[in-house]
Amino acid sequence: MTATTASPDVWSTPLTPLAFLGRSAEVFPDREAVVYGERRMTYTQLSAEVTRVAHALRACGVTPGDRVAYLMPNIPEMLVANFAVPLAGGVLVAINTRLAPPEVKYILEHSGATVLVVDAALHDLVDSGLGDLPELRHVVTVTDPAGGVQPSPTVPGFSYDQLLAMGNDESLPWTVEDERSTISINYTSGTTGRPKGVMYHHRGAFLNSLSEIIHSQHTGRTRYLWTLPMFHCNGWCTAWAITAIGGTHVCLRAVDADVIWDLFDKEGVTHLNGSPTVLVSIASSSRVHTLDREIVVTVAGAPPSPTVISTMTGIGAKLVHVYGLTETYGPYTVCEVQVGWDALDIRERSRLMARQGVGMIVTDGIRVVDEHMQDVPRDAETMGEVVMRGNNVMKGYFEDPEGTADAFRGGWFHSGDLGVWHPDGYLELRDRAKDIIISGGENISTIEVEAAIDSYPGVLEVAVVSHPDEKWGERPKAFVVVRAGETPPTAAQIIAHVRTQIAHYKAPDQVEIVESLPKTATGKIRKVELREAEWAGHSSRVQG
Amino acid sequence: MTATTASPDVWSTPLTPLAFLGRSAEVFPDREAVVYGERRMTYTQLSAEVTRVAHALRACGVTPGDRVAYLMPNIPEMLVANFAVPLAGGVLVAINTRLAPPEVKYILEHSGATVLVVDAALHDLVDSGLGDLPELRHVVTVTDPAGGVQPSPTVPGFSYDQLLAMGNDESLPWTVEDERSTISINYTSGTTGRPKGVMYHHRGAFLNSLSEIIHSQHTGRTRYLWTLPMFHCNGWCTAWAITAIGGTHVCLRAVDADVIWDLFDKEGVTHLNGSPTVLVSIASSSRVHTLDREIVVTVAGAPPSPTVISTMTGIGAKLVHVYGLTETYGPYTVCEVQVGWDALDIRERSRLMARQGVGMIVTDGIRVVDEHMQDVPRDAETMGEVVMRGNNVMKGYFEDPEGTADAFRGGWFHSGDLGVWHPDGYLELRDRAKDIIISGGENISTIEVEAAIDSYPGVLEVAVVSHPDEKWGERPKAFVVVRAGETPPTAAQIIAHVRTQIAHYKAPDQVEIVESLPKTATGKIRKVELREAEWAGHSSRVQG
Repeated sequence: MTATTASPDVWSTPLTPLAFLGRSAEVFPDREAVVYGERRMTYTQLSAEVTRVAHALRACGVTPGDRVAYLMPNIPEMLVANFAVPLAGGVLVAINTRLAPPEVKYILEHSGATVLVVDAALHDLVDSGLGDLPELRHVVTVTDPAGGVQPSPTVPGFSYDQLLAMGNDESLPWTVEDERSTISINYTSGTTGRPKGVMYHHRGAFLNSLSEIIHSQHTGRTRYLWTLPMFHCNGWCTAWAITAIGGTHVCLRAVDADVIWDLFDKEGVTHLNGSPTVLVSIASSSRVHTLDREIVVTVAGAPPSPTVISTMTGIGAKLVHVYGLTETYGPYTVCEVQVGWDALDIRERSRLMARQGVGMIVTDGIRVVDEHMQDVPRDAETMGEVVMRGNNVMKGYFEDPEGTADAFRGGWFHSGDLGVWHPDGYLELRDRAKDIIISGGENISTIEVEAAIDSYPGVLEVAVVSHPDEKWGERPKAFVVVRAGETPPTAAQIIAHVRTQIAHYKAPDQVEIVESLPKTATGKIRKVELREAEWAGHSSRVQG
Repeated sequence: MTATTASPDVWSTPLTPLAFLGRSAEVFPDREAVVYGERRMTYTQLSAEVTRVAHALRACGVTPGDRVAYLMPNIPEMLVANFAVPLAGGVLVAINTRLAPPEVKYILEHSGATVLVVDAALHDLVDSGLGDLPELRHVVTVTDPAGGVQPSPTVPGFSYDQLLAMGNDESLPWTVEDERSTISINYTSGTTGRPKGVMYHHRGAFLNSLSEIIHSQHTGRTRYLWTLPMFHCNGWCTAWAITAIGGTHVCLRAVDADVIWDLFDKEGVTHLNGSPTVLVSIASSSRVHTLDREIVVTVAGAPPSPTVISTMTGIGAKLVHVYGLTETYGPYTVCEVQVGWDALDIRERSRLMARQGVGMIVTDGIRVVDEHMQDVPRDAETMGEVVMRGNNVMKGYFEDPEGTADAFRGGWFHSGDLGVWHPDGYLELRDRAKDIIISGGENISTIEVEAAIDSYPGVLEVAVVSHPDEKWGERPKAFVVVRAGETPPTAAQIIAHVRTQIAHYKAPDQVEIVESLPKTATGKIRKVELREAEWAGHSSRVQG
């Protein structure tokens, strides 16, 4: 076939989320783009600040491909960075604000960031470590009045206002030359080893943004509450998605259930993303009441429990359950709700909705494979590793060819998550490879044990980890948080209950009632911390 | 920056709408994919038939890049073709069923189609012309009981059932090697010259599908009524979009208002696309009644009039006004409804909604330019040509490098449409370049004159074209259709009314009351036909 083609520029332009802000500034100039307390920015103002910061970063010496680090809560400056850094040609490295100073320093060093923009309240994370970072040329401090903290006098550099003064208002093109060039590097803190720098490209960020608009049903009337950290997978690409659809970003400095309820009521919030933990905290607030409009809550990080599903549905929320990893731009699968599910009782519906589901609309789908990369049977029983590929998989780990090659072995991205494949093609996670308990040669899914305990009356949260056992190698131990005002159950009561739900050998040997569970910035329970305490002094724990 | 990258296959796969059917067959196997009278196909059945037809086409000798022509109304076989032909590696050429036999023959010849699949009721379009098409190897006839027509004995070839028997059920990958390879060629009948073959690529089709899901707000509960011909820009890419979201295609052999109302009521239709003409016919039906659910009507082809907008809104429809050309995969712009518009009165709201708007979410936006490719001022007055570029612009005209180069001159696709740019960045079309009337050196927009006449009580439809004038060169003439039961106005009444709305010199000299207006298959008024009748015997008409 003789195809008649002319310059590809006319009919094929590189995909980039930058175009989303260019469009929204043009189409919705006066619409509220950002809300933060009393601060308001229209799309005109947002694009103007983005442009100014991009110029300022160039004035700071940022050249194409340079890394620019941000260490900041979910304030407008962090949102601006998601566009300003790539507009300047740079690569955004948004650092987890819950890390310890040595981890932050490692990321600054490994990424080779030339500029760091940091919130004054987080100065303690960098105060002592900035001296010996030869590539870091500028440190810029944002002093947010709502942060209530003055900059540390020992952190060098200049203020965000001074940064802005270095910029100008001349418009820059909302384009990129190569859609496969890197837009951001998100460091993921493995539970072992050093954090790895997950590289996203413009093409993947663009496609995943559209995918999230579709699956979370965003519209131009979306008022999105930033409960999910923007440093986490660029907020699952939501920084770009909400901007694309012309919605409103409602910023949030810290996750506080009372503040969230204030914003639900005052700002007309329509959407939020978060882990079940965040939902538990919202639903447990004394301020809880039925909403006068539907809020779409996109939940990930752990399967929502029947209690979370029924509580959130009860107040007028609609849950969208998604699953992914930093390596997949955030969400990769969605538990698509089938037509008949509405009619099911809450227990059955929750059971179905707790599954991680199927590949989102722009993905290549998922596979669950055995160690030989063969699909496991779709029998809801055989466990295998979840693998993914396609435009929503990272380009690789920054400056870590071995790590990348290992993650991509066999031509697929290996998630390290273990799950079963249901006959209807839905994935259900059983465990992180490192969380699975191998007791006398039998696999015990900690998620399954947790679900059984969660159904005991009065249980608010639960985490199950392995603890060492002379006879079995390892056995499950449960940490249980009880709802306020409830009488804590005894270990025997919990164990007896679990045995009514699942196989006896899966019931925990030990149950500890605790005040709270250790969590990551994104609300995931830090099982590694619980597990390490159990295994202190033992060397036989094979899964790290 | 040293980027660490591995095999792009893991993290970058070619975009193709084929993946949409692969996913929906996997995720929604039992969902109703296609409804056609009593016929029902689930997504499992749709993907099975697509697979079988793809194998059969290969058995017919279709190799990568070969063109496969379809001449067919909006029946399930036509929908299947949108996936089966590219799955076989071929390029779909869906031919306009309203063309004359010589035009159909020209397209078969020019495209070099090796297979033609034709509905028995359209045999008269090909009966005499198939003899001397050396590249055409197979003719396949679909005999649709609802068509009520038996195949012509003189058309060679075999039946669709025989085609199906040549296929098999072995699954084929829902992938493509090169996302910029051609998926379809849509011949656009220029009003002068030969039809041109507009080439779409997989990437553009994929992106425009997502864009339509977003702008027309499709969900898995969409039940889409096929009022828009599938041969027209692959149904504005809706054949792919509805499949992507797991909606239901409600097929429709012919646009008949009573049948449409039946399907609204019986099939729970939620969405349709069409021209204002189709909406007028729906709204004028004796069956008209208020809907018990919102129907989203995506309208293009001409700006919807205030009457159409208020009537459709009155019965419970929500209008989405889009604009594009065959060369832009169908819709390229959308009249984004701004937050305050709901509160405006119907006249003002209609005036705003009648504008063609802004580039859709995946586009590169539009420009309105003068003859030197400079942007015209955004003053709502200065006319210029609408130009577009990016992933939603065709690859070019098939085997027509000169035509392609001309359409792409200056690095932009030239639409041939004239419009003004409003201060808010919204495009408003004034005319096709060939429709504009130049009277004594002044431009007169026929669309503007039509809008003025449309606001006269009792007017159902109107078309304005140039007619020859000794003194002014050309002057406007109006053809007016009056609503059933209304007393036709006099020419003097119409002219007097128009002068209350727009400049006196723009009022028509002649007004002719007619029973109906000539229309294209997609419901556009064929102004060329009206104009040619006026200019018969004159040679001075400069715009063709």
